[in-house]
Amino acid sequence: MEERVIYTPKEEIEKRIDGLKTLMEKEGLEIAFFHYKVDYYYLSGTMQDAILLVPLDDEPYLFVRREIERAKKESPFKNIIPLNSQKDMIDYLTPVKKVGIQIDVLPYRDVVRLKELLGNPDIYDASSLVKELRKRKSKFEIMLLERASEIQKRVYEYVPGVLREGMTEIELGGILEAYAKTLGHEGILRMRSLNYEPYSWHILSGESGSIVGYADSPMAGFGLSPAFPVGASFKKIRRGEPVLIDFGVCYHGYQVDQTRIFAIGSIPKKFREAYEVTREIQERIIELIPRGLKSKELFEEGRRIAEKYGYSEYYLGYGPYKVKFLGHGVGLELSELPFIAEGHDYPIEEGSTLAIEPKMVFKGEGACGIENTFVFEDGKVRALTDNDESIIII
Amino acid sequence: MEERVIYTPKEEIEKRIDGLKTLMEKEGLEIAFFHYKVDYYYLSGTMQDAILLVPLDDEPYLFVRREIERAKKESPFKNIIPLNSQKDMIDYLTPVKKVGIQIDVLPYRDVVRLKELLGNPDIYDASSLVKELRKRKSKFEIMLLERASEIQKRVYEYVPGVLREGMTEIELGGILEAYAKTLGHEGILRMRSLNYEPYSWHILSGESGSIVGYADSPMAGFGLSPAFPVGASFKKIRRGEPVLIDFGVCYHGYQVDQTRIFAIGSIPKKFREAYEVTREIQERIIELIPRGLKSKELFEEGRRIAEKYGYSEYYLGYGPYKVKFLGHGVGLELSELPFIAEGHDYPIEEGSTLAIEPKMVFKGEGACGIENTFVFEDGKVRALTDNDESIIII
Repeated sequence: MEERVIYTPKEEIEKRIDGLKTLMEKEGLEIAFFHYKVDYYYLSGTMQDAILLVPLDDEPYLFVRREIERAKKESPFKNIIPLNSQKDMIDYLTPVKKVGIQIDVLPYRDVVRLKELLGNPDIYDASSLVKELRKRKSKFEIMLLERASEIQKRVYEYVPGVLREGMTEIELGGILEAYAKTLGHEGILRMRSLNYEPYSWHILSGESGSIVGYADSPMAGFGLSPAFPVGASFKKIRRGEPVLIDFGVCYHGYQVDQTRIFAIGSIPKKFREAYEVTREIQERIIELIPRGLKSKELFEEGRRIAEKYGYSEYYLGYGPYKVKFLGHGVGLELSELPFIAEGHDYPIEEGSTLAIEPKMVFKGEGACGIENTFVFEDGKVRALTDNDESIIII
Repeated sequence: MEERVIYTPKEEIEKRIDGLKTLMEKEGLEIAFFHYKVDYYYLSGTMQDAILLVPLDDEPYLFVRREIERAKKESPFKNIIPLNSQKDMIDYLTPVKKVGIQIDVLPYRDVVRLKELLGNPDIYDASSLVKELRKRKSKFEIMLLERASEIQKRVYEYVPGVLREGMTEIELGGILEAYAKTLGHEGILRMRSLNYEPYSWHILSGESGSIVGYADSPMAGFGLSPAFPVGASFKKIRRGEPVLIDFGVCYHGYQVDQTRIFAIGSIPKKFREAYEVTREIQERIIELIPRGLKSKELFEEGRRIAEKYGYSEYYLGYGPYKVKFLGHGVGLELSELPFIAEGHDYPIEEGSTLAIEPKMVFKGEGACGIENTFVFEDGKVRALTDNDESIIII
């Protein structure tokens, strides 16, 4: 069991901390705190219950509650210190004028307490630094994303053997999840949000594909109840309707995103034709990324192609429910920098990973579309999720 | 599919809002905002992307992003209003001196913006009000908890048919989850925490049961990687070791918690004997709750029984890893008021639901213990998870 575990190498952590310090210096920050576990895992190598303090002119301090031995095993830091209350950090602090704190995720109450403990310095959003760093993936991270993609490919290859007429969406979701877990899928997905809970079982058949909801997605699905009104439902999968499977996988914290379309027996021509347009949009976007186009130009190009073929009404959602992005970065969070989106004024940088997902929604009938996770490296855009892109008829 | 969905009745919502207003009045609050979906679901009946504004002297306003039609179907409120930005709320606001905001969960950045929009009034923690309300369950809520328990009972009854020597903990976890979902388990569990992610697959065999981690639990397990270092792992389940299954179920947002012990072939006498002590502790506690003992006195009584039988070293965790609670409320969150815990100075009130979980941990060897979800009503404590409490030998 132990041999399956991959720890973040020391050199990798050192590079990340160096990168962080460069950004801190630019912003005039003497110290920065990281309370959100996804980010301190990236910077330290451990997700044990901790607070990470990075001083510009000193080694990082990792304050750990409860299980310090696992933190020491997972993180190469020298300063790993037990923490019972925030006050235990005080001996390690010198007065500063400005401090980095993750104010985009840390609750108000906690920030106010920490600010008081520090003598009320100015606050800078420390999350902006780590988001910027995490945007470009290292070789080590790409290796983990490749392993996540390998699991995901096997999940999609598994579908034809288990999908049967009359089974519910949620039954199929459960079977795919159970299989993915035996391969290393951690069962959870992560998003930077108080309220949005990502999940793997985004399986929408027929009209489910045109049900919208709270998710910023062209299609939300029914879900099981008003208390989880997204994703797979008790709707039975019927012959001859599109079955959209958007099944996220997480391996060692790294997530990949993919969508394929399945159908039992046959699929209406309408969905088959629309699907080919989404494939063309995807092909065109990955061709344009290395040419340095800006995010918003890529987004416009997708819209232009959909329009050319007469799909404006259905592309990225119907009517008032269209989303304003075509792609999103993917890594330790399911949605992170960079985005291919309306109004985003930057080119895609090398090292970025992107899930690109042109989708079409037909109100009351269903949805179709393609999604792959790509990495932009060595001047090229490569699909990590490179399995068969055909509609699979079972 | 639709017929399986239960909506929160209008009278139920009205009663909750009335209860909230009584508490608001006591605290001198003219308005309170609810941004956290678990709480505005409780108060409104919907989990669509929303902000709930409750004025003391007016009907509630539910501001909804994206999918307002589902919100209208799920919530009986009259005032359901589209929201594009926080500023859209301004027409509905009058200047106040003090405002309720959920500062225990809402990020600092969001609270500061809202505060500015409101002209910088004093802030009161609105979460304390809804936590207090949610502590006592209604008949409607108990009905949903009973249905969640029914699913959970069937999951435990399903174990003997699938548990096999040599399967990994995570494989068993996936199979149980897949089965639970076909019965209505929503696949997610919820906790009020930036960093803690609850999960159903807490399956720990042999030494896994004595692995501690970031979770405030006597045992965390290995998990699959440093990026999710809790719960079921790739450890193979062996003959003759305790298999602790603590599998949470969520139905229509309501969670129940249960633990049972399984073993293949046989279980060492040590675990069998320790298990009987945990059963005795549980029996004693549920006998004492209706007598009005305080939480901390109940906690002490558990400790006293463990000590009497010579289990002080193992009870609720070993060495420095002991937890300071024996039970926790359970409902829309996996851990909520009331608690049976050290230092908690209140009696358990009628209408409370409680997961009581005396457990024993033997370092390097494993864990055992019992857990059930109970409801305290009509002067009695009743187990919702009333399936067989024996150790199941397969």
